[in-house]
Order: sequence, then C-alpha cells, then structure tokens
Amino acid sequence: MPYFDAASSAPLHPVARQALLAALDEGWADPARLYREGRRARLLLDAAREAAAEAVGCRPDELTFTPSGTRAVHLGVSGAVSARRRAGRRVVVSAVEHSSVLHAAGRFAVTEVPVDRLGRVSESAFAGALGPDASGEGVALACLQSANHETGTEQPVAEVAGACREAGVPLLVDAAQSLAWGPVGAEWSLLAGSAHKWGGPAGVGLLAVRKGVRFAPQEPADERESGRSAGFENLPAIVAAAASLRAVRAEAAAEAVRLRGLVDRIRARVPGLVPDVEVVGDPVRRLPHLVTFSCLYVDGETLLHELDRAGFSVSSGSSCTSSTLAPSHVLRAMGVLSEGNVRVSLPPGTESADVDRFLAVLPELVAGVRAKAGAPAGPARPGAGESGGAGGSPVVDALGRRCPIPVIELAKLLPRVPVGTTITVLSDDEAARLDIPAWCEMRGQEYLGERPSDRGTAYLVRRVS
Amino acid sequence: MPYFDAASSAPLHPVARQALLAALDEGWADPARLYREGRRARLLLDAAREAAAEAVGCRPDELTFTPSGTRAVHLGVSGAVSARRRAGRRVVVSAVEHSSVLHAAGRFAVTEVPVDRLGRVSESAFAGALGPDASGEGVALACLQSANHETGTEQPVAEVAGACREAGVPLLVDAAQSLAWGPVGAEWSLLAGSAHKWGGPAGVGLLAVRKGVRFAPQEPADERESGRSAGFENLPAIVAAAASLRAVRAEAAAEAVRLRGLVDRIRARVPGLVPDVEVVGDPVRRLPHLVTFSCLYVDGETLLHELDRAGFSVSSGSSCTSSTLAPSHVLRAMGVLSEGNVRVSLPPGTESADVDRFLAVLPELVAGVRAKAGAPAGPARPGAGESGGAGGSPVVDALGRRCPIPVIELAKLLPRVPVGTTITVLSDDEAARLDIPAWCEMRGQEYLGERPSDRGTAYLVRRVS
Repeated sequence: MPYFDAASSAPLHPVARQALLAALDEGWADPARLYREGRRARLLLDAAREAAAEAVGCRPDELTFTPSGTRAVHLGVSGAVSARRRAGRRVVVSAVEHSSVLHAAGRFAVTEVPVDRLGRVSESAFAGALGPDASGEGVALACLQSANHETGTEQPVAEVAGACREAGVPLLVDAAQSLAWGPVGAEWSLLAGSAHKWGGPAGVGLLAVRKGVRFAPQEPADERESGRSAGFENLPAIVAAAASLRAVRAEAAAEAVRLRGLVDRIRARVPGLVPDVEVVGDPVRRLPHLVTFSCLYVDGETLLHELDRAGFSVSSGSSCTSSTLAPSHVLRAMGVLSEGNVRVSLPPGTESADVDRFLAVLPELVAGVRAKAGAPAGPARPGAGESGGAGGSPVVDALGRRCPIPVIELAKLLPRVPVGTTITVLSDDEAARLDIPAWCEMRGQEYLGERPSDRGTAYLVRRVS
Repeated sequence: MPYFDAASSAPLHPVARQALLAALDEGWADPARLYREGRRARLLLDAAREAAAEAVGCRPDELTFTPSGTRAVHLGVSGAVSARRRAGRRVVVSAVEHSSVLHAAGRFAVTEVPVDRLGRVSESAFAGALGPDASGEGVALACLQSANHETGTEQPVAEVAGACREAGVPLLVDAAQSLAWGPVGAEWSLLAGSAHKWGGPAGVGLLAVRKGVRFAPQEPADERESGRSAGFENLPAIVAAAASLRAVRAEAAAEAVRLRGLVDRIRARVPGLVPDVEVVGDPVRRLPHLVTFSCLYVDGETLLHELDRAGFSVSSGSSCTSSTLAPSHVLRAMGVLSEGNVRVSLPPGTESADVDRFLAVLPELVAGVRAKAGAPAGPARPGAGESGGAGGSPVVDALGRRCPIPVIELAKLLPRVPVGTTITVLSDDEAARLDIPAWCEMRGQEYLGERPSDRGTAYLVRRVS
C-alpha cells in the first residue's frame, strides 16, 4: 500500500529504529548527572549533536535539540526577534512559509513578501522589504524556507541571505522539507528542522543559531540545551534522529535522481491523463520527491477518500480537507486553483510500479468524483451560447454551497450566455475567492473582480470566448 | 549495578518498551490526516489519551500531551495566569516547588509559602496567601506539588485545594513525582506530570486542565493538542507513556509497601551507621521510594563519586554537585544541612540485597571522604576548651573555601575556645548560609546570625556547651 505523503511524516528509517532501540537501553538517564548512567547518556547526546551538526553544516555548540520542528521555529523566531528589539520589531517572511513560521512571526509586525505563480519569492522584492517600513519600524528578523512544503518549490535562499547580510538582518531558514536532501548552501543565521520529515522519530526538532547571532531565549529559565529549549532531553529519539539524518544523507544523491524521475513522470503525464488539471510549483527548482496538482470541479476530500480506498495516501491543500474552511495559504499566495488539490510526496524507496499504478487509477477516480458533483463534461466550448433567461446579467447563486460547486455552476452557465455577458457568482465559500479567478485563467475568460454582497461575495466573470 | 535515582529518570518499563515498538510501526503518520495511516495514528492517540486520563482521574478532553513535564508546567502556568489577568497577576507557590514551577511563576509576581523543617507547607499559611497582598494585587493561580522531588515529603494538597476553592483561585498540582503511585486525590484545577518519571519514555509530559477552568494558551497558534501544546505529536512515545502508566499503577500498591520497607530500613539505620547524619523530610507522609540525608563535613560531589565507584547511582542537593554553586532551594527552604547531601530514590523492582549492600558500604565511604577533607573525628566534645589565641573574638577565615570546609574549620576551632565565646566565620560560599546554622542546631551551639563583611559574609556562632 503506497504511502505518498512523506512531506507530512515519513516512516521511521531502519537505521533510526535500530539507534532508538539501542539508546532506549543506554540513554534513558539524565545526561546532567555524574554517575555512570548519566555519563553514558551525556556521551550519546554529545555524539548525536556532533553528527547532526555535521549534517546541518554548523558547530555542535550552535545546535539545540527541540521537541519538534514547530518548537524550533517558535523558539528561533522569538529568541532572535527579542534580541534585536532595538533594531526593530518587524519580521519579513515569504507568503508561503509554514504555518509555524507565520504564527510565530505573527506575534510581531509582519511583512509578507509575495510569490509568483510558481510559488517562488523574488530576491529583489525580499531585499526591498528589509529596510524600515513607512512607519520607520526596522526589521528584526527575516524568515525564508529552503523549499516549500506544499509545492516543492525551492526558494532563492542564497540570494536572500546575501541581501540580509547587506541589510544587517539575521535570516532564519526553515529547512524542514529539504534537510533530508542536503545542507542549506547559504549563509543563514538560524536554521530549523524536524526529524520526522527525514525518517527520524517524532519528538525531535533542531534549532541552529550561528555564533555571533544575537539570541535571547524568551521562555522560563531552564538549564537543558544551553537554556534554549526547556525540558528533559528526549535522548533516545535524539540519537535516532541524528542516526537517520546521516543515513538518509548517505542515500540522498542517488535517491534524489531516482525520485526526481518518478515525479517528472507524474508532472508530465497527469495533464494528459486527467482533463482540466493544473500542475503547480516550479518544474525545475524544486524538491526531488514532491509534486502537487489541482483538478478542476473536484472535491478534494472526496478525491482523497477515493485515493485512500485505492491504496494511495496523499494530502491536499483544498479547503474541503482542512478544518479551517479556507484553502491552503500557499496556493492562495500563488493564485492557483485550490480545488481538487493533491500533493504527492514520495518517501525514499518508492517503487516505479507504484507510481505507474497511481497514474493508472487517477483518471477514473477523478472522473467519478466529477460525475458525482455534477461537473460539466468537458471544457466550456465556445459555441452557440444560449441567451440565458435573465437578460444581460445572469446570476449564479451558490450561497451555502462549498467548493467545488460554485465553480461548477459557473462553468455550466457560461456556455449558455452570449459572449460579452457578465456573470455574477454569489458565494460565501472562502475557496471561491481563489478558484473563480483561477478557473477564468485556465479557461481564458475574463475575471472582473469581486464586490461585497448581502451575504458572502459577488464574483464577476465576463465571457470573452 | 543498582540505580537509586528514579526521581531523576526511571529506566523504561518493559511494557513501555513493547508499546513503543508497536507504535513505531503503527503510529508514525500524522493523526490529523484522513488516510489509513493517519486514521490508525489517530486511534492510537485517542486510546492513549483515554488510558492516561483514566489514570490521572480526568476526562480525555481535559488532557493534553506535551513534550515534557517541564513544558506541561510552563504551559499550564502561563495559560492559567493569563486567563485570569483581571483577578490579579500574582502566583502563590510553596517554597519547595520544582524549578520549572518557580521559573514559570517567576514571570509574574510570586508569593512563596514557607515550609517547616520536614519540607511541608502549612495549610493555613497557604490559605492566608490566597488573598490580595499589601499592594492589593490579587492571586491568579496557586501551585503546589503533590510530593517533593528531593525529600519525598507529601504536601497537604487536599486541604490547600479546599482553601483555593473557597478563595476562588485555581490550583495547579505538579504531580510529577507521585503520579506513578496513584492519582492526586484532591480537587485540582490543573495538573502536570512527566512520563520518564513513571517508567515511560522521555519526550512526554501531560497537562490536565479541568473543564470550566479558564485557560488562555500564550504561544503561537497551532492546531495540535487542542491548541494547548504546539508541534507534531510524539505519538509512539505517547502510546508508550500511557501504557507504562497503566502498568506501574497495576503494580503500585504492592511495590509501594515493599519499597517503603526498604526506605524505612535506610531511614532507621543510616543515623546509627554514619555519625553526624541528618535524615531529612517527613518520616511518615512521604513518597514510598525516596529518602534523603545529609552528612556533616562531607563534600557531596566526592561522596557521589565514591558511591558511583562502588556501583550506586544517587543524586544530591549539595551545592558542590550543582552548576549554580548554591545548595538546593528545597534544603534551603527547610533550613536543614545541605552538605554531603544524598538522595536515594528506588526504582520499582529494587532488591532488598542492594539496599543492604548500600548500607554496608556507606559508612566507610563517608569516613574516607571526611578524612580526606580533614574533618574533626567526632562531635565537638564539651570539655577543657583551650583559650584560643585571639582573646574574646576568634575568627575562622574560610574565604575562598567551598563547602564543607567552612563548617569543618568552625567545628575544629569551637572545642578550643571557652564556653561563652563568639566565633566569627568568614565565608563567601553560598552553602555556609545554610550549613552553619544547621551545624549549630545539630551540635546544640547558638547561632547568632550573619552580617555583611568586606568579602563574603560573617557568621556568628557562640559556644554554649
């Protein structure tokens, strides 16, 4: 049963499992104690820190183990910003950072740097945001991911690091998605990672803070981990995390080539196999193992359920699969279609045959979900154009209907109105704000914008072909 | 090789190990995902929460898993205090709480309730501290441990909980040391625990917040654990933690009786085997597995080292074994001797023969350490009394000398001065503040108090017998 959601959490690497078992026996004591069990635990902790630091590309005394990648980000952001109060209280982030970064930065004033349709920030836009803003508030910290967790798009970290250095602003790199594949080749000031993304166990994150970077821990005092991460060290898991990072790195070069080939196959073939699909993310500068696409007129949750029944575990940034009712902020920032969104992230060792089987079942599953939702059979054909009932201004009332229904109703009505007609779609579903313009772009129709309505929002679309 | 430091960290319970291994295979995926691996992880998480809640004595939806006991305390204190800003910003704690409680409370105004020589707070003193203070500042939260981690003394939690209820103040109980032995039989509002203290793995704490208790999480938003503890759940460890809590509880009643017998043996025999020993903590209302004593004229670190060489792993609250140069705040609050302090905490399964072996080697080891430090051979004998050189006011200059030297020098000089003479001990060692008065109490001499000196402090002792 192929598991294609490595970007959420990867199964434990065999080396990690072995290391964990050994460390359960040897490393359960308090490494701060002076007796033999404590000294043994301290040796294991020191060795794990050295191994992890080497893989990260930093000194062991720059590396702190945290209970999760999220905690690493929270501690890193608060410690770095608080140490630079005099420089300013503003945090510059890309609009597509992981939610842990956005939430941690949200404690302060935030400047979001937008991304292009491939999900990549422009170096110059990021550099431009590093100066004081209109109110004169300076920048305490910049945050940029090494690669995006939903699209795989790699960010121009080296270039942004250069701009940060020139501006005298420390840069925190969230490397959670890329650390399995190699160190971050840029002059970062702080770096965060998460072990269960690289085949290590849950319960271990890492925060590296370069010597010389000002850092002021903000939590209650604690003597563990140089005062940077409170609580008894999760030692067996730390040992396993370090061991698995070494192990995946040893296999990374070969596995990256192999998985990149499998992902290229998906990227190339899905648009031919499934009509009305948008493959998103940078086709070249991307993580080797991750690809994301969105299927028009498809309810994401239903499609995930069908894929699960067919034996494939994938995730989705569609609003209907999240508890927030809003589509992924990453897809929103990119301005791409969010409905029927599928993220495939292949764990190391994924077999070619499993990818082929995925490509074999996908078209039928998508067609089935579309049929159930009453989606139009094919692209809106420029053609006759029925002169729909209501004279010049037909309305699609999709209030109370969730994604993908508003877009489906629009797509059904459009071919029945004359070219030049403006259609108003009324919707109170957050996904419509993203998906109606995205549909217009895909279909070559004109999106005229939105305006407030009695309930929800009115989206205006003009038929141009 | 007997390990006698269960209060620091206990070896993994066999049941925990088994549960961890199973959960590594079944519970590595994200429990928030809808596919089969995610659903399986969710089932494991729900079952672990139910089992842990039953053992704690709360509803599953009142229980949050955290990455450590320290984090549980930090999150509990900040969330509870912040939710009651309008009632006040003061936190009432016992003076002998764990450092995680004291540090978390230290973010706010703190009222410390003193303890008696057995390490127990008085219910009435605690109740008296729950009203507004002189400045009118109200109390947001009270914190009381179920039992002390250094002395084993049980606190009057039920009585204090009653006083808190009357005063309308929520009570956080740090149950880290007692949870293995049973639920906290009192009406707490919040409760914190730590799995590696009950034979579970590191990386798991728990925070219970009773329904109806106001609680406002203070950290960046995160959807895990009902927004109360950020970061990917450490699921295999959580499963193991819950399993081991059930397992130790099943054995708790019988094991408590057995270990209490072994501890009673140590309490009864050590004062006879080793001269000049003070056994500290409540002899009756105490944890079953823990006993602490202090040895006059003994350097704690040297004694721990000698015990380690003899195969016994114990811990100490002496200043010379800590990185802070200050003796344990618990011993300080009790006003008992801190030098040569040894804490013995027996893990479940400790054998009677190991305790006997400990009692067999201890006297010789203490005698050896004392001889090395040049300690006086026996108690100061009231006797001749040499009329020491410097007329009426002899001085012991122990500046720059660390514990136990200041007390040793005092003990050597005292028998050589006439009864009625006041000796001045000059010391800049923080332990002297505790150990000189404690020595006077043990020896029946009069402690006259301290006053500032050019360097360090002058402690005044009058020979009365």
